[in-house]
Amino acid sequence: MSHPFFERHRATLDRAVQAIADRGYWSAYPESASPKVYGEGAAEAGKAAFDALRGKAFALEQPGTVGATGGERSPYGFALGITYPKADVDALFATIEAARVLWGKAGPEAWVGVCLEALARINQQSFLMANAVMHTTGQAFTMAFQAAGPHAQDRGLEAVAYAWDEMRRIPAKALWEKPQGKNEPLKMEKRYRIVPRGIGLVIGCCTFPTWNGYPGLFADLATGNAVVVKPHPGAILPLAISVKIIREVLAEAGFDPNVVTLVAHPAGDDTAQKLALRPDVKLIDFTGSTANGDWIEQHARQAQVYTEKAGVNQIVVDSTADIKSVARNVAFSLALYSGQMCTAPQNIYIPKDGIDTGEGHLSFDQVAAALAEAVQKLLGDPARAVEILGAVQNDGVLNRIEGARHLGPVVLDSVSIAHPAWPQAAIRTPLIVKLTAADGDHYLSEWFGPIAFVIATESTAESLAIARNAVKEHGALTLSLYSIHPDVVERAVDVAEDAGVALSINLTGGVFVNQSAAFSDFHGTGANPAANAALTDSAFVASRFRVVQHRLHV
Amino acid sequence: MSHPFFERHRATLDRAVQAIADRGYWSAYPESASPKVYGEGAAEAGKAAFDALRGKAFALEQPGTVGATGGERSPYGFALGITYPKADVDALFATIEAARVLWGKAGPEAWVGVCLEALARINQQSFLMANAVMHTTGQAFTMAFQAAGPHAQDRGLEAVAYAWDEMRRIPAKALWEKPQGKNEPLKMEKRYRIVPRGIGLVIGCCTFPTWNGYPGLFADLATGNAVVVKPHPGAILPLAISVKIIREVLAEAGFDPNVVTLVAHPAGDDTAQKLALRPDVKLIDFTGSTANGDWIEQHARQAQVYTEKAGVNQIVVDSTADIKSVARNVAFSLALYSGQMCTAPQNIYIPKDGIDTGEGHLSFDQVAAALAEAVQKLLGDPARAVEILGAVQNDGVLNRIEGARHLGPVVLDSVSIAHPAWPQAAIRTPLIVKLTAADGDHYLSEWFGPIAFVIATESTAESLAIARNAVKEHGALTLSLYSIHPDVVERAVDVAEDAGVALSINLTGGVFVNQSAAFSDFHGTGANPAANAALTDSAFVASRFRVVQHRLHV
Repeated sequence: MSHPFFERHRATLDRAVQAIADRGYWSAYPESASPKVYGEGAAEAGKAAFDALRGKAFALEQPGTVGATGGERSPYGFALGITYPKADVDALFATIEAARVLWGKAGPEAWVGVCLEALARINQQSFLMANAVMHTTGQAFTMAFQAAGPHAQDRGLEAVAYAWDEMRRIPAKALWEKPQGKNEPLKMEKRYRIVPRGIGLVIGCCTFPTWNGYPGLFADLATGNAVVVKPHPGAILPLAISVKIIREVLAEAGFDPNVVTLVAHPAGDDTAQKLALRPDVKLIDFTGSTANGDWIEQHARQAQVYTEKAGVNQIVVDSTADIKSVARNVAFSLALYSGQMCTAPQNIYIPKDGIDTGEGHLSFDQVAAALAEAVQKLLGDPARAVEILGAVQNDGVLNRIEGARHLGPVVLDSVSIAHPAWPQAAIRTPLIVKLTAADGDHYLSEWFGPIAFVIATESTAESLAIARNAVKEHGALTLSLYSIHPDVVERAVDVAEDAGVALSINLTGGVFVNQSAAFSDFHGTGANPAANAALTDSAFVASRFRVVQHRLHV
Repeated sequence: MSHPFFERHRATLDRAVQAIADRGYWSAYPESASPKVYGEGAAEAGKAAFDALRGKAFALEQPGTVGATGGERSPYGFALGITYPKADVDALFATIEAARVLWGKAGPEAWVGVCLEALARINQQSFLMANAVMHTTGQAFTMAFQAAGPHAQDRGLEAVAYAWDEMRRIPAKALWEKPQGKNEPLKMEKRYRIVPRGIGLVIGCCTFPTWNGYPGLFADLATGNAVVVKPHPGAILPLAISVKIIREVLAEAGFDPNVVTLVAHPAGDDTAQKLALRPDVKLIDFTGSTANGDWIEQHARQAQVYTEKAGVNQIVVDSTADIKSVARNVAFSLALYSGQMCTAPQNIYIPKDGIDTGEGHLSFDQVAAALAEAVQKLLGDPARAVEILGAVQNDGVLNRIEGARHLGPVVLDSVSIAHPAWPQAAIRTPLIVKLTAADGDHYLSEWFGPIAFVIATESTAESLAIARNAVKEHGALTLSLYSIHPDVVERAVDVAEDAGVALSINLTGGVFVNQSAAFSDFHGTGANPAANAALTDSAFVASRFRVVQHRLHV
């Protein structure tokens, strides 16, 4: 049956379904933070709403609450002072078990309608979200607005569109009429009901809580499941706001809001593991470390598990017409959010004898120097630099920078930049260290943060061979190639398809390897160890529901 | 790029894609064994082809062959005397690894084209297949022809259609053009390549080697994977014939035939486990026991695993207008292939105080007697009986009949019937034993074979409660209800959807609960312990491939 929220957003849904088929550019939620788009005063209201949350208990009424938890600190240098309900997990799950029954029977239009209305309301809170994400992840404001706001909402909508696209292809009923020669045909009516798997668990990360969290959250919800959201202890607020909005929409639509709940917890406890192993958790979406993701894949056997883990992202530099544009593009990818992106490049392979460019042959060191100069130029103005770099999310990043600078000759050192507005923030520029192909022990693991290696190889052939094995053995979300030679491009495409990683070729303009666009770019492939699923494709949604039929003669 | 085999079968594919959307009756391969359909002499030629295979080495040339294996015995009482290549598995896999490269790059039209041509050729061998299946599984000839021939081919085609329907929705390329205000838009071309997962393993069973084997086999192949087929040692020939035909089609299409290989092995060894744990096996389709299926789900962590295991199928008898038709329908379901079907009913719940029927109230014992009488009537003529019952596949079935007759009062004993043509065949009629609701220890596990329990319950409500828990705890592929009361039907639908099992309501005619039709009935749901996947839906195919993209400015 149709649902008012479904009807309200039907045009958006239809356009999104078209977008996942075309895969051209499309976005449902404007990425511009301009008052012309979001209204005069929207930015100020979002900031005020964020400030009003600080130092208080977050207003989330959940059953099974036994106290409070929460200790988020802004990477810009202050404690948020916000507390969240601490859950008695068994008690909470008992109420979820009750809540999910009516929801599970509501059907695709109600499920999708609630998701679309929730996304629309979350979109209206994009300025609040920008502040919440800035002060938990350390992203600079504009990035926080875009990546955690409209771009994350697009990713959520994309998952809803995929779910709808799968569900709508299952007819509600069919007349089955089998000829019997001269006798009357056998006639049956068959009715197909889409039933959810049960309870989904979404485990958030501390750098992209919404962008990485929404696909699983909305894929679960759009297929009729209940969802338990477990944020990273360092970035609870963005998901708490999201959960609160979804619960309001659920309640308005006549459903028990406990279909979607938040389980916040202190850092270092075993909440994630305990939740992941519950027999009633049937779906898990995880974003985080390889160790934790592998653990869940190995142990949470009762659930369908979708993971995005760590990887080693790589750039193969073979040749270019325009080294300056290459350097400028790569520099931005290294600097953006201090490399704290699962897609940020780390290993840059350059033949030890240098490369051909439009300005003649350049030695390895000249190419490395060009990259270093481009980073310095990009970040030369501190006021501009901090808006690109954002702040370091946690001390682990700082420790890794310290560790990495001793691995080899430093081409460009990481330096601290003082934020004009937030003097307490830890802001660090990218470190570039020179290695050789033989230093695999150093570069074949993820150095999450503003850390890059320029690696001298025998040749582009060796660069590609290393890249292929690195993807296969250690995983990767991105691979990038610079080459003016069609045969090299072809070989790189081969490597990418064999190893199972998305490839960007000759990015020299305003598109960066660490950015992937909803409805067009598949984020992750599920074909290498960095992720066992892609955001988003059919495989990401098709197992979140089942079809149960009944048949009778007519 | 298009492919001649794809073009040849394009109309069949399109019709199949329409069929999985409509889900009305459709079949690509005629189930009638009439000479008018398959040609004069086709039956005789199939029999002759089967006879020609007996007592010889099966002509399958595979690399890595180190001797021969095979010891199939016809349930009709003779040794087939056929041997198959015994594989040095590591050597075989090395050749598969090489074979799969070109195949993996060929793309959806080539993959699907080869599948469709292979299915068409397999269809032409339906009489050979009928003999091969009859003399490995024990199915009677007509059933062997239909279920292992056209019906199995339909199931294979259905999997191909689902795979195609998922793959065709991914565009080969897209133009992504993002507006940049007054500046030139960002323009990229994105190319999406469908890449297979690698090597799939199909583990066959001894009762429905093709019907249960083809969906996984053709789903793997249609998505570009290589496939290793490991038949049950008791039913190698049907899959060996299938593999041979597919290899011929592969070779004709210019591919290495080792894309599809057979690994036959002696009963009782650990070939299945060794294959399932190979790191290069990325997909596994299993049909067999719960113990073996659970083991694979638990241990084969490197692979995407699809299992169909055992379950407890049930009939809830509440009321009926026409007890004779009910009894006739149920009797056929119990007798067909001696209940050696994963869908055959086992537990028949009847209220202890009896039921209302069109002929007045009948006591529990009267209902049980009606079932027993219907079985006796159905099987009264031995010549007809053997064509329904087929032969017992293995001694395990005979042992279970012996064990079950001591569980409670025997309502109808299982008796031996002599086959007019095959005096050595073990042919047994259904056993019906009376139990009570309290005898869950007996009836809550699968008694595979011609064994049914009539179980006295307090009421239909208790029958449904037992049925619900049995499905949730022990799994089931089918549930059946007889009731004239709409509210009872509604409750049964609720139970079926909650527990996750397909429900058949008031089957009194020519449709039987243990039959499910390709393109219309989902076989299994993936929502209860009997199977973690359905044959066939999107979830069954969507994870068998990944999409790897590359993008570049234009």
